[in-house]
Amino acid sequence: MEKNVKLNNEQFILVLNSGSSSLKFAVYHYKSMHRQWFGVITGIGKPLGNMTISDSHQHEASRRMRHYRNIEDASTEIILWLKENKKNCQIYAIGYRIVQGGANHMVPEIVTEKLLADLNALIFLAPNHLPNELSLINTFLLKFPSLNHVACFDTNFHREMPDENKFYPLPVKYKKQGLRRYGFHGMSYEYIMQKLNEQYAFIDQKKIIIAHLGNGSSMAAISSGKGFDTTMGISPMGGLVMATRCGDLDPGAILFMLKQNDITAEELDVELSEESGMKAIAGTGDMQEILNMGDDDKRAVAAITLYCCQAKKFIAALAASMGGLDMLIFTGGIGQNSPEIRERICADMDFMALKIDRCLNLRTEKIVSCQSSRVCIRVMKTDEEFMIALHTKRILEGGEEKDSTFSTQSEVEIT
Amino acid sequence: MEKNVKLNNEQFILVLNSGSSSLKFAVYHYKSMHRQWFGVITGIGKPLGNMTISDSHQHEASRRMRHYRNIEDASTEIILWLKENKKNCQIYAIGYRIVQGGANHMVPEIVTEKLLADLNALIFLAPNHLPNELSLINTFLLKFPSLNHVACFDTNFHREMPDENKFYPLPVKYKKQGLRRYGFHGMSYEYIMQKLNEQYAFIDQKKIIIAHLGNGSSMAAISSGKGFDTTMGISPMGGLVMATRCGDLDPGAILFMLKQNDITAEELDVELSEESGMKAIAGTGDMQEILNMGDDDKRAVAAITLYCCQAKKFIAALAASMGGLDMLIFTGGIGQNSPEIRERICADMDFMALKIDRCLNLRTEKIVSCQSSRVCIRVMKTDEEFMIALHTKRILEGGEEKDSTFSTQSEVEIT
Repeated sequence: MEKNVKLNNEQFILVLNSGSSSLKFAVYHYKSMHRQWFGVITGIGKPLGNMTISDSHQHEASRRMRHYRNIEDASTEIILWLKENKKNCQIYAIGYRIVQGGANHMVPEIVTEKLLADLNALIFLAPNHLPNELSLINTFLLKFPSLNHVACFDTNFHREMPDENKFYPLPVKYKKQGLRRYGFHGMSYEYIMQKLNEQYAFIDQKKIIIAHLGNGSSMAAISSGKGFDTTMGISPMGGLVMATRCGDLDPGAILFMLKQNDITAEELDVELSEESGMKAIAGTGDMQEILNMGDDDKRAVAAITLYCCQAKKFIAALAASMGGLDMLIFTGGIGQNSPEIRERICADMDFMALKIDRCLNLRTEKIVSCQSSRVCIRVMKTDEEFMIALHTKRILEGGEEKDSTFSTQSEVEIT
Repeated sequence: MEKNVKLNNEQFILVLNSGSSSLKFAVYHYKSMHRQWFGVITGIGKPLGNMTISDSHQHEASRRMRHYRNIEDASTEIILWLKENKKNCQIYAIGYRIVQGGANHMVPEIVTEKLLADLNALIFLAPNHLPNELSLINTFLLKFPSLNHVACFDTNFHREMPDENKFYPLPVKYKKQGLRRYGFHGMSYEYIMQKLNEQYAFIDQKKIIIAHLGNGSSMAAISSGKGFDTTMGISPMGGLVMATRCGDLDPGAILFMLKQNDITAEELDVELSEESGMKAIAGTGDMQEILNMGDDDKRAVAAITLYCCQAKKFIAALAASMGGLDMLIFTGGIGQNSPEIRERICADMDFMALKIDRCLNLRTEKIVSCQSSRVCIRVMKTDEEFMIALHTKRILEGGEEKDSTFSTQSEVEIT
């Protein structure tokens, strides 16, 4: 199915990573895998959007402000920029981050008509994300029909979790419909694991938790080098409390919301995804804004306290799930950039021999744990786009696992 | 509001504790607080129900089998038994276990018309439990109008949890409707804490987790002698996976169930309460039956694995919530009677210095932890009915906190 495009020394991989109201893109030199350009369009669907592009030295190369109605507008903007400014930039392949491909699409694979049809039939599994992601692929397929397009799934990292972490204790008919714990942020976890692999021998003998803390926050427990457990479930709404998402709930809470209010499942979805979490407590979901509100602001204090308490609880729970913990990695926007949040999460965790060093943490050193801490605490930068570019390159070079119908014995067909 | 009944040396407290399809009752000698009789009616609403009564030596004193259509039938049976067999048994007061009284009724209080009206208006908070409990009170009020009737709330134990454990990160309008984390099994936790208080000095300086594991399972974290955190939320459906209840879920899972199926919130409630949990995996929710299915039965193994994994995770999470753990208590039907489940829950928890001693545990000794375990692991029998009797006695003697409008600054009025 690979397209017949000749590769030369000056060709590139374009990576597209779409969020709910943003679209990140990056251009990697195919041979060296150096990132040449990185751009982000924010405020899609809002009155005024913003595109910024930086070069390989992280200097701002371009900035535009205009109204992007939707993901198609944002896609067109990127195509225009590629055309206008990068005449010598020859794209060889395009890699996409896809949130969800169900039980049968987890490993990265080349985009085919069959895959697109399958993903279209799986929109119900990720109704808040898949439509935009499909629209993005379709726009670029139309514009670059002769290129190779590669889909990388966020669920791939977690595909080998044991059954007790993969399935819900719900009537079996729902499992048959595809309801199970998939987990997300897989590209981020994979990138971190790859970096650790370069730095440590025997990393696959360690029990590791990666805390990807950002607007969307999740954690993964890694044992024997594989995803063993994670906080998110079938949707990116589960697990930890987040900027605007509520995290795991007593189902009685949702039944209460439904029964006490004249509200549809769709309306409830919007409330739980966009109006809950830190935003429901502090008025904003932006962690930096909340931190800036200061200690005198009760709502800010309450939001930060809840966020850090939940993070503590999930770290301990994931450690219990694996039967121990050797290393805790903080990554993501909050994990990388907020010493205050890292310190609060790690406070009073001596009972599991996890102790942060205040000075190392304030300086955001690579390792921020005390010497006496049995658990090594690290801060690492993640790079989902690089991981997508790497998968894209590998699959085109035949080095990627190509089994797109990966399924364990206990998988169920989606009917 | 206390009734003018004279107390003599041969008077008793009747305790009534109703479950979803069962009704427990117990008769305590008022002065000595010795239990004279204990009875349970099971299979209410099923084709054939069963009443067994045992005396103070735990010898079976009576047994009846018949069809009990509803809680009224079961109540009438108890009244009949009191009349027929216990002519000399003079009831002085009746204590009831009530699941939920909202934010304004947590401390035990004498049943008044105002309380009944308030509870009637709060049925939406506990639609699966309050109607039966109210019907029970009304039947006995009608029969014994001159007695003192005392309501004891399951939520009382958790009423002083800090805000981060008490409120959901959901839009504020829901909080105003009464949506918050209440926690349950309060009578059981209080009984255990009272027993510990008798046995240990400075128990209020310890960090304790009580794991009440039965058909309904929950855990409470106790710090400074008070309920600090718990696994259940607004409903007894949250937290740990249980016999037939699912426990906490990614809200996306519930939205999926609603959107993919033509199902109402009420139907979903029944599925999540009665058809989920261990039953959805093993075909039965009865832990003893599941254990009897043996290691060759994959469904039984899967159900037990999930139950024990979740218990591990919640123990670790609650320890993190408190910032440490000194003592873990197993109680409830499973907690008291299943060494196998206790052993599996405590396996591989060395990372938090929690280690069970296999032999002590098999013999169900009082203390079952290894000498090297920093966390003391205990097995204790709980007695909710005794606690209700004690509250009833205390309130009539004026020794109970009578403030039935207990509310902290952050409470909200239920509108």
